[in-house]
Order: sequence, then structure tokens, then C-alpha cells
Amino acid sequence: MSGESSVRELRATGLQGVSLGETEIALVDGENGRLIYRGHDAEQLAHESTFEATAFLLWNGRLPDDAELSDLRHRAVGGMVVPSEVHDAIRALGASALPMDVLRTGLSIWGAMRARAEGGDSEDALWALAATPAIVADYARLRAGEEILAPDPELGIVENYLLKLSGQRPEAAQARALDAYFILGAEHGMNASTFTARVIVSTLSDLASGLVGAVGALKGPLHGGAPSHVSHMIDEIGTAENAEPWLRRKLEAGEVLMGFGHRVYRTYDPRARALGEVAESLAGENERLALARHVEEIALRLLDEYKPGRKLYTNVEYYAAVVLGGIALPPDLYPATFAAARTAGWTAHILEQLQHNRLIRPTVDYVGPMPES
Amino acid sequence: MSGESSVRELRATGLQGVSLGETEIALVDGENGRLIYRGHDAEQLAHESTFEATAFLLWNGRLPDDAELSDLRHRAVGGMVVPSEVHDAIRALGASALPMDVLRTGLSIWGAMRARAEGGDSEDALWALAATPAIVADYARLRAGEEILAPDPELGIVENYLLKLSGQRPEAAQARALDAYFILGAEHGMNASTFTARVIVSTLSDLASGLVGAVGALKGPLHGGAPSHVSHMIDEIGTAENAEPWLRRKLEAGEVLMGFGHRVYRTYDPRARALGEVAESLAGENERLALARHVEEIALRLLDEYKPGRKLYTNVEYYAAVVLGGIALPPDLYPATFAAARTAGWTAHILEQLQHNRLIRPTVDYVGPMPES
Repeated sequence: MSGESSVRELRATGLQGVSLGETEIALVDGENGRLIYRGHDAEQLAHESTFEATAFLLWNGRLPDDAELSDLRHRAVGGMVVPSEVHDAIRALGASALPMDVLRTGLSIWGAMRARAEGGDSEDALWALAATPAIVADYARLRAGEEILAPDPELGIVENYLLKLSGQRPEAAQARALDAYFILGAEHGMNASTFTARVIVSTLSDLASGLVGAVGALKGPLHGGAPSHVSHMIDEIGTAENAEPWLRRKLEAGEVLMGFGHRVYRTYDPRARALGEVAESLAGENERLALARHVEEIALRLLDEYKPGRKLYTNVEYYAAVVLGGIALPPDLYPATFAAARTAGWTAHILEQLQHNRLIRPTVDYVGPMPES
Repeated sequence: MSGESSVRELRATGLQGVSLGETEIALVDGENGRLIYRGHDAEQLAHESTFEATAFLLWNGRLPDDAELSDLRHRAVGGMVVPSEVHDAIRALGASALPMDVLRTGLSIWGAMRARAEGGDSEDALWALAATPAIVADYARLRAGEEILAPDPELGIVENYLLKLSGQRPEAAQARALDAYFILGAEHGMNASTFTARVIVSTLSDLASGLVGAVGALKGPLHGGAPSHVSHMIDEIGTAENAEPWLRRKLEAGEVLMGFGHRVYRTYDPRARALGEVAESLAGENERLALARHVEEIALRLLDEYKPGRKLYTNVEYYAAVVLGGIALPPDLYPATFAAARTAGWTAHILEQLQHNRLIRPTVDYVGPMPES
């Protein structure tokens, strides 16, 4: 359909600066470089808490006690067993399917099976938290022609994600680093995917529909960002000596440096700081981390030189790339891994939307023609 | 997760009255009871046009010429062949799956296969227009244990939907009535499902992701409405004599009458008027139509008596139920059939969003606690 649609540019507000209302889930404080999850500093949680406890916090407004955490962990890990119907569909998509398409499809099938079986229940959020990383890990095994692995009940969600991906019980430092990544990726206010999930469930549709829509939105290049681009940049630079000429060449050519600058943070992204600290603990990553630190230092200096006053600081993508690269995750799984982390926030927002529901529907101004009569 | 979340009620704006910007696709003129598709009266299109021509109009801003219409029809009908991978997943969901869950899943799989095969192309909207009714019809056959049927290249999309559902070449009056239903259901401004599709593709995600999200939103009881409730009401009333006592009993009990009243239309819903006229032509439906007309007459009189000044008129659900009942469509397929019609509008909005894109993302006000420090 090659339409000869009008030449005029239609006004698109993007709803910028318009409030959807109130939330108790998270504050993205861009001026002060802080990210708050229900009264807790996300940076601090990344150092001191776990992904399961953070999800509980986002859902319930407080951290769990030991018994609650143990119960949540036990049930979530038990949920990381993907039904064979989902495996069959994933297999049918083949080894070259986009991981985000596989995740969207897997959640849709599994959600449909649950709706059929149970008609929906209050455990939906817990289901989602377990299902998302399990589908991604199982797809990685299936496309490599490897056996699907059962979760280990002694490990947590993130450790089991690594176990199911690699077939090996993960090293403590790697599991800790990825757990911090999951905590810091769990929630970030009213981004497009979280908003999508809220719009969908505002019709009183089910949680699976909200999640499937959120995955579809996160797929978009204007949303998720791309830590894999940062990985490729660091690979391409290769050596410390090459950093300054390489970065200068890009800036002279007017190109954007991946991993720097953020719409909201006008200062160092608190998630980047925490992930940078976590990256220090990753064994075997010292050389690459040293290069990343060096590249960052030069990049910040050159950004100040080429774009003075623009407040372009390191963002979360930069150290996410270092951490995800440090645990040897295939770069094409970065977006789906991010989705697994963000499922905690998506489900928290879905629950909040349903508790204080109002159908979400803006208006639109018709500027097309009218009938002649 | 039985959270002890706060007692306070959070403010939810629902973005009511906030404009997303400009559109050239449709005007829902509630005061005057008119629905305009790109300068054409939808009522008139329902009488004089076809679903394929209406989709072309919504996409391109003008009606197709004969060659364009023939080409569109030919390619769309050719696209009504569902891949075996989609059939396998539908079969795995079993005969008791919700048709909207099947549609959401089928579009996700098929979309993933297309992304893998082609990386997306300009024929996405045409694909969607053919894929949606084809998936619904094939599911109806599969769950009944019946053979999947190929489309007939001599027929249009709506005729092929009926053919694939029933195994029989549809009668002209039935096909005409359902085509009018598809035209009148094709588009209705910025409702929640259309908005969902626009939010998703505003991240530059793919059309399939937008559609899958829209289907998820349309699933919600606050959105799609339920013509099957109207069918059940007319069945329950059963005879003309029973209409007044039955309706009075409901109104005395404070219950809502299905098929009456609309958020936007403060007068007779133009779609209800057109569908009522179309229903006249449905052979064999004269008795039920006569009952429906009688029930409507009494209902409007009683609504004026019990709720004076509320401007509760017949809405589209009422005569949609008569038309869909008249072609013997199983009531649990009504929402997915509506989705097949609305795919024309969803895809038109996706194309318009991408042509004038701005990431859609409102803000939200954090009212939760702050860290103690």
C-alpha cells in the first residue's frame, strides 16, 4: 500500500509532560541522579538486596521478611519450568527468530494456557517473574540444539537463569553481578513499555496481555536502548591507545556515542555507578573493565569538549554492557534479559493500575476532510 | 502476594480529555451521531462499499480504483493461508482456549515468522488484514475437529471468513451483512486498543507487536463491549409479550441494559442504524429481527421513563448482536470477529503513527515514601 497520504505534518504530542496520575512504585529523580523504589534507593538495593526481594518490594511496598522471601523464592524457582506446548512453538520458530519475538510469543501461549486452566489468579505476577527468564533461557538452549535444563530449587531466579542458559552452576561473582543488573533494571517509572502494560490492563484485560504488549513495546529501538552497541564499541576500540582517536573520529563525524546521555538524568546515572562497582567484582573481567573505564574517561572529556554544557554523562547501558559481557551472555539476548528484569516493574504497575483503575484513553483531533454533502 | 498496600486512593487521570495530537483517519462525532472515515460517512460506506475498499481508504486517504481494489482483494485473500506452525500452536492450546488468546498468540507467532523471514516490509498492514480473520476461522475449525479450509480466490476477505468458518460458500445476504459489520467496526478513533497499538509502535517496534498489544487490550471487558450479552438478553426475553415485564424488572433492579447508551454518542449510534438496516436483508432472521425491534422500542421508552434526560440510545452492540446472530456466528467468536474488523483501523493508526512518530510516554507523579537518610 504505497499511500499518497498528505504532505502536512500532523501534530504529535507524545503526551510529553502530561501526568497519568499518581504512583507509589518508583521515582526517577533525574536532577539528583537518584532512583527510588518505594522509599528504597535502587543503588543500595543493588548492593544489599536480591532480585526476588526487590520484586516483592515493588509489588507490596515493603521488603519481605525471611519467611516471605524464602517462600517467594521457592515458588518462583518452581515456576521456571516451561510447558512443552511453549517449547514446541519456540522450536517451530527456528533458531533465527528474534529473542524478543520468542518471548512475546511464549508469554502469550503460556498466558493462554493459564487462562484456560485457572481463569487467572493472584499469583499472576509471580508466574510472570519466573516465566520470563525461563522462556529466554530455554530458547537459548533450543536454538543451540542443547537440552532444556530444570531449575535448581536451591538457587534463586537469576542464578537459575544462568544455570538454565549455561548448564553450569554459576560462579558467585557472576550471579551477584547479574542479580544487581536485574535489581537495577527492575523498574524505571513511566517508560513506554510500562505505560503499554497499564493501558492494556486498564480495560480489565489480563496480566499476560499486559506483559505481551510490554515486551512488544520494549522491542522498539527508541525504547530499550542497546547495551550490545556499547559492547561492539568497546570491542572495536580494542586498546587503550585507540580510545581517543576512535572517539574523536566519531564525534567529528557527528555520531552519537552509545552509553552516554539520558533523557531524564542530568547527572551520572545511578544505575551506571552501581553496575560499574558490581563489574569490579567480576573475575576475569579486569582487563576489559580497565579498558571500559579508560574509554569512559576519555569519552566524558571529549563530550565536554565537543558538546559543552550538554550534561552528557555515562548511562546505564554502558556498564550494563560491561556486566552482561562479563558473564558472557550472547549480545542478542540483552533485550530479552532486560525484559526479564523489567517484568518485576511491569507487574508492579499492572497490580497498581488494577487497584486504582481508570480506563486510559486520550482524545485525538481529527484534521482530515469532511463529507461533501 | 497479598500485599498490604496503602489504603489511600491514587489519582488516576486516564488521560481523559488530553489530546494525543492530530489524526486524519476518523472523526467520532458524538453530538451529531456521525462517524467519518477520512471524509466518508461510515454509514454510507456500509451500504455502498466493501471492507477491502474501506481498509484501503483508512490506509491511504482515498477509495481505491477498480484495479487497486482488485489487486488488494487478490493479495489479501491469498494471505488467508495460515502457516502450519501457527496451527500447531493453536492446536496445542486446545479446544477450550479463549479465542482472543488464540488470536493474540497466532499473530505473535506468525509475526515472528515474518520478521525472521523478511525483516518487515510495507505489506505488513495487508498481511494483518488477511491474517486476523484467517486465524480466527481456522481456530473455530480446529476446535471442532474439522478440516482447515483454503480461501477461495474468487471471494473477498469477509466471504472467505465465512467460507473458512462454515465450509460453505456464504449466501449473498449473509456475506453482505457481515461485510457491513466489518466496515462499521473497522475504526472508531482513539479507543484503548488503537491507542495501545500506537504506543507500542511509537518505540519503532514492529506492526505485529502493535497488533498483539491491541488484541490484548480489546480483550478487556471495559473495552470491547459484548454483543453476546445482547444476544443472551434477546434469547431470554424470547417473546414480544415478555419484553416489557422483563425490561422493567431489570430497570427496577438497577441493572444496566446491554446495547443501550454510549460514552460518546449522545444520539442514535450511526453504526446501530446502519446495522439495523443491514439486518433487514438477512433471510430467515425476520422473526428474531422483529423481536429485536420490539425489544428496542420498549427499552428506549422505559429508559426514558426510568432515566430521563440521560440520552441513552441504541448502540452498535445491539444490532451487531442481531447481525452476528443472524449469520449464526458462535457468540464466543464475537470479540475476535470484532478484532478482525478493527485490524483495518489498528493498522491505519500504526501507519499514521510511524509517519509522524513521536515516542508516546506520559509522566507520573510519585507519591510513595522517600529514603530515610
